[in-house]
Amino acid sequence: MRKNESGDEIYSLIKKLYPICRSITGNGVRKTLGIIKDIIPINIYEVPSGTKVFDWVVPKEWNIHNAYIKNLKGKKILDFNKSNLYVLGYSLPIKKKIKLAELKKNLYTLPKYPNWIPYLTSYYNPSWGFCLSQKEYLSLKDEEYEVCIDSTLENGSLTYGELFIQGDLKQEILLSTYLCHPSLCNDNLSGVGLLTYLAKYLMEFKPHYSYRILFIPETIGAITWLSLNKNKIQNIKYGLVVTCVGDPGNLTYKKTRDGNSELDQIVKKVLDDSGEDYNLIDFFPSGSDERQFSSPGINIQVGSLMRTIYGKYEEYHTSADNLSFIESSFLDDSFKKYKEVLYLIENNNLYLNLNPQCEPNLGTKGIYSLIGGNKDEPLDKLALFWILNLSDGTNSLLDISIKAKIKFSVIKNTADILSEKGLIKIYNSNGIKNQFNPYLKDEDFYKKAKEKFDLK
Amino acid sequence: MRKNESGDEIYSLIKKLYPICRSITGNGVRKTLGIIKDIIPINIYEVPSGTKVFDWVVPKEWNIHNAYIKNLKGKKILDFNKSNLYVLGYSLPIKKKIKLAELKKNLYTLPKYPNWIPYLTSYYNPSWGFCLSQKEYLSLKDEEYEVCIDSTLENGSLTYGELFIQGDLKQEILLSTYLCHPSLCNDNLSGVGLLTYLAKYLMEFKPHYSYRILFIPETIGAITWLSLNKNKIQNIKYGLVVTCVGDPGNLTYKKTRDGNSELDQIVKKVLDDSGEDYNLIDFFPSGSDERQFSSPGINIQVGSLMRTIYGKYEEYHTSADNLSFIESSFLDDSFKKYKEVLYLIENNNLYLNLNPQCEPNLGTKGIYSLIGGNKDEPLDKLALFWILNLSDGTNSLLDISIKAKIKFSVIKNTADILSEKGLIKIYNSNGIKNQFNPYLKDEDFYKKAKEKFDLK
Amino acid sequence: MRKNESGDEIYSLIKKLYPICRSITGNGVRKTLGIIKDIIPINIYEVPSGTKVFDWVVPKEWNIHNAYIKNLKGKKILDFNKSNLYVLGYSLPIKKKIKLAELKKNLYTLPKYPNWIPYLTSYYNPSWGFCLSQKEYLSLKDEEYEVCIDSTLENGSLTYGELFIQGDLKQEILLSTYLCHPSLCNDNLSGVGLLTYLAKYLMEFKPHYSYRILFIPETIGAITWLSLNKNKIQNIKYGLVVTCVGDPGNLTYKKTRDGNSELDQIVKKVLDDSGEDYNLIDFFPSGSDERQFSSPGINIQVGSLMRTIYGKYEEYHTSADNLSFIESSFLDDSFKKYKEVLYLIENNNLYLNLNPQCEPNLGTKGIYSLIGGNKDEPLDKLALFWILNLSDGTNSLLDISIKAKIKFSVIKNTADILSEKGLIKIYNSNGIKNQFNPYLKDEDFYKKAKEKFDLK
Repeated sequence: MRKNESGDEIYSLIKKLYPICRSITGNGVRKTLGIIKDIIPINIYEVPSGTKVFDWVVPKEWNIHNAYIKNLKGKKILDFNKSNLYVLGYSLPIKKKIKLAELKKNLYTLPKYPNWIPYLTSYYNPSWGFCLSQKEYLSLKDEEYEVCIDSTLENGSLTYGELFIQGDLKQEILLSTYLCHPSLCNDNLSGVGLLTYLAKYLMEFKPHYSYRILFIPETIGAITWLSLNKNKIQNIKYGLVVTCVGDPGNLTYKKTRDGNSELDQIVKKVLDDSGEDYNLIDFFPSGSDERQFSSPGINIQVGSLMRTIYGKYEEYHTSADNLSFIESSFLDDSFKKYKEVLYLIENNNLYLNLNPQCEPNLGTKGIYSLIGGNKDEPLDKLALFWILNLSDGTNSLLDISIKAKIKFSVIKNTADILSEKGLIKIYNSNGIKNQFNPYLKDEDFYKKAKEKFDLK
Repeated sequence: MRKNESGDEIYSLIKKLYPICRSITGNGVRKTLGIIKDIIPINIYEVPSGTKVFDWVVPKEWNIHNAYIKNLKGKKILDFNKSNLYVLGYSLPIKKKIKLAELKKNLYTLPKYPNWIPYLTSYYNPSWGFCLSQKEYLSLKDEEYEVCIDSTLENGSLTYGELFIQGDLKQEILLSTYLCHPSLCNDNLSGVGLLTYLAKYLMEFKPHYSYRILFIPETIGAITWLSLNKNKIQNIKYGLVVTCVGDPGNLTYKKTRDGNSELDQIVKKVLDDSGEDYNLIDFFPSGSDERQFSSPGINIQVGSLMRTIYGKYEEYHTSADNLSFIESSFLDDSFKKYKEVLYLIENNNLYLNLNPQCEPNLGTKGIYSLIGGNKDEPLDKLALFWILNLSDGTNSLLDISIKAKIKFSVIKNTADILSEKGLIKIYNSNGIKNQFNPYLKDEDFYKKAKEKFDLK
Repeated sequence: MRKNESGDEIYSLIKKLYPICRSITGNGVRKTLGIIKDIIPINIYEVPSGTKVFDWVVPKEWNIHNAYIKNLKGKKILDFNKSNLYVLGYSLPIKKKIKLAELKKNLYTLPKYPNWIPYLTSYYNPSWGFCLSQKEYLSLKDEEYEVCIDSTLENGSLTYGELFIQGDLKQEILLSTYLCHPSLCNDNLSGVGLLTYLAKYLMEFKPHYSYRILFIPETIGAITWLSLNKNKIQNIKYGLVVTCVGDPGNLTYKKTRDGNSELDQIVKKVLDDSGEDYNLIDFFPSGSDERQFSSPGINIQVGSLMRTIYGKYEEYHTSADNLSFIESSFLDDSFKKYKEVLYLIENNNLYLNLNPQCEPNLGTKGIYSLIGGNKDEPLDKLALFWILNLSDGTNSLLDISIKAKIKFSVIKNTADILSEKGLIKIYNSNGIKNQFNPYLKDEDFYKKAKEKFDLK
């Protein structure tokens, strides 16, 4: 596989999606989903404006065709075709002549970074406006202008994409990202790109869990999906919101509301095993759609694995969050980490040691060299002993790898060998622990356990 | 309100009480309680000498009228009227001529601080003696002296004061201080002064909890009260011993025996929110009356909020613990902290989010501005989200403020607004948590919960 | 008692055992056990080769009479009589002429320490070989040699020693060491020596617990004993593997699999009370026989109290682990620590405060001076208060000493005085806690508890 191959693919997709003007509804979202559908077979859903979704209502659909500010000589000072960030999201249509003083009431800038255009929206407060750089703002002369926003805000629908990948288990893992931002790369498109290729990857092998992949507009999309899919919530074991995965920062994991869910332990182990620096952040009820998924009446354990968290890099929600800000290599690294998280989710099995009384005689099992007294035990021998010692019906491979302070992959590979050699047997898949513990000092009890679980 | 107004009032009361010679029984206690009664309507109880109280017996009543040491020229070397600390507490009456060598057997000094008179007592070991400064001791000539202690130790009673403030709840909060020390300010009188005005403050509003305020002699008073009021113990939720609240030191909190009671969390939060340095001390079975309240067969969770803890300042139990050692501003600061503790106790409610599934549409509730994309979320918006997220029937406002790392007052004020706007509703007052949690994924169950709690 | 008297005795025994060539079976073990039997009345057991023990089979018995490498001039290059480490353990018999190149395939050295002979074995992989120093190896000339190993590997038996000391209780404490190493001192013989004299010490007083002392070959011996004594496992409360107790390092404690068993708390307290530096190591499923005792189907809580742990000193498993490496003073110090551990095990009782409501009136019990107001409370007064406060049926003396941060011996001695004075009474011996807690606020309940436990 080529260096950064996945990162390059993701970057190419982002590049294709970058020019599209997206919002929480409208054709930008449809066009984006159409491009994703060329890669993975998502279903695209349309939810009519006015649909009641919990405490909310699906808003009118917003579309924009053109927008500009012209001076009276007819020169375009600001042109939507050059950057869709120039228009305040969800701006009402307008076309009129206006004095500078009046115009200024509808202009938004970011004085701290005079060359950057801020990204702002006004979804639920009917309004119109332009965002522009402080530099552009200061160059405006005190004259009359023609402002034009050729937009529509009409009954239509909210559009989202969903892909369900059926696994062996009814239990689902939720992977969600949002696609409601216009030309912004790290916040938004990096998540869309990564999740598209992660879904493709998941479809290539038959996973154990089922996976539910969502491409939704932030907040209202999550609320809409949850409101319309209440019956699906109970099958979701936990989930991740994918966003901000293309910048140069270290990995950051925002924990689930529970704070110590299996998912939290898994992501922490992946990051620990990487040997790289990373940040762990406790759940807080702000941020992205984990806010909705983790609301008290929904209560799905949802974390978010990012690089630099939203709001903590200066380019966030500005025109500087562009194709130069993200890099293929960072996307590739994030993609690898997500694959490792899936690897742990899929392989966090619970085994039973079939020779629980003292160590098995490994010398007779063709597993290890018999010369004793060697000071330097190779690590996998220790992994082997840890698995045998802790496979008592209460510790999953993840638990074992954490207690042993050994990489999960080493524990998993060693467990495979032990399983193949008949020394351990899968007891209950994917770490779903059973209260029943067959390892008691009572021999008969152990025999019954063997029968019950059809162990030889 | 004037700067240090409460501190000044407390200081004035201490000044008035300072000259009185108190002990564990006698007229000094009665006089002290009489002065307190001018401020708050305490009941004064008399328990006869000889009354059996658990493993103890109420002692004989001690009163003292005069005491001195004269030289044979008739000059008073030591005069009880100049300092009541000169007499060993509970000294038997004596009047006789005595040689210096013999006298010395009954003299007590503090060589480390040659100008200070130590405070000593001999409650249960019939004896007599004088305490004096090392300097006075060294100036005694080898001659004969006339010693006189005009005291009485006779059947009488133990006197204590009690004020019960009826609140909405049967559950009581205990606030206790001791009033058995003679002219000592920080250890003893500062607690008496602060608790008097705290009781006055509590009476001015109708509290939710009931409050039981005790002014008792240390040890024997607590034992007596507990022995005679066994039926009241079960209503006491927890309590505080008020002492050493006038010195310049940082606040110190000695935890309850439990170590993590609601009271411990409350006091810690008050101290954290203050932004000031403070000391946390684990419970130990010595100190003041928390020893009795926390004995295994009583087991009330009682902490103690002080400034410098008894025994840890050099002036402790000496004549230097006088009106100059304490200051109005420190008393005022301690008073404020106690009021904040009461504020948390009274307002630690449990709310239920009435729109638990995803976030409520706050834009329609007239609560916050609708312009999105703003980087700088004001803190109270985060408080709002925390309250909504955690008001699931398991987290009190205190729990929320601790998890959110937000000041309790901000959480409380935000909760008031949310409650007013109909977004949350009091579920179970004062943090008394119910095992029943209405936020399950089952919609029907939630509906039943709504009915059960009469939520709309 | 003479300085290092126990250390000197242990050292003498080690010196006597040092020359014997031990292995996991054979006459070396028998001879060693015979010498131990001169000191303590162990039973010696023989388990026939071929006996099935769990997943293992008792191996053939190995004995060795002589071994050497001669050059063709008849000069002995290597002589078993000079060091039994020269022979690879469990070497098959051989006598033949051999070229250097061929010989080298059966030679083992330790290049890092050119003067030391490594200790290696090949128990379960029929083979032959010599171990020698790198210096000796390099001096070998390219010529023909005569190699001779005069050994036998035949049906016989595995030999081990066991001593059962009957105490008042059916519950047993397991003390185990291994005796399968040839001339190695710290790893192996120091444990044998210390455990021999610890058993002698235990027999001199009538212990409360029963003690089971094992002298067994490592791994196969533990497996054999466990397999043949399954019915005894349930009586074992916990145990210690005694090894590496003669070197100059600090004490090291490897915890039980549980990690916070009573034994772990006891050993930690002994080490804390010593005021010396020490190391605490979490359980890991490698090392000595705690591997077998802590396997999931056996699950006895077994720790190991050592000085420097095996494998962490350079002399480990080499000829440098000799009589100069260990010292009488270190053995003596280890012996003292083991005795203190036994002291805590035997005295970790649970008492009941017979005056649980408030403090008892100690002044009437002849326990302490009655002059109050003394700043400097002697430590044992605090110990007294801690015992009274925590003796509520849930805290053993160990729990109290840990919470109070007071030496166990001070707590124990103070408890003896309180018990003698009738203030506390043994509730349930040896810290075996009862769910039933008599200290509730209900007086009647307490009265019933008093009756139930026949307290006055």
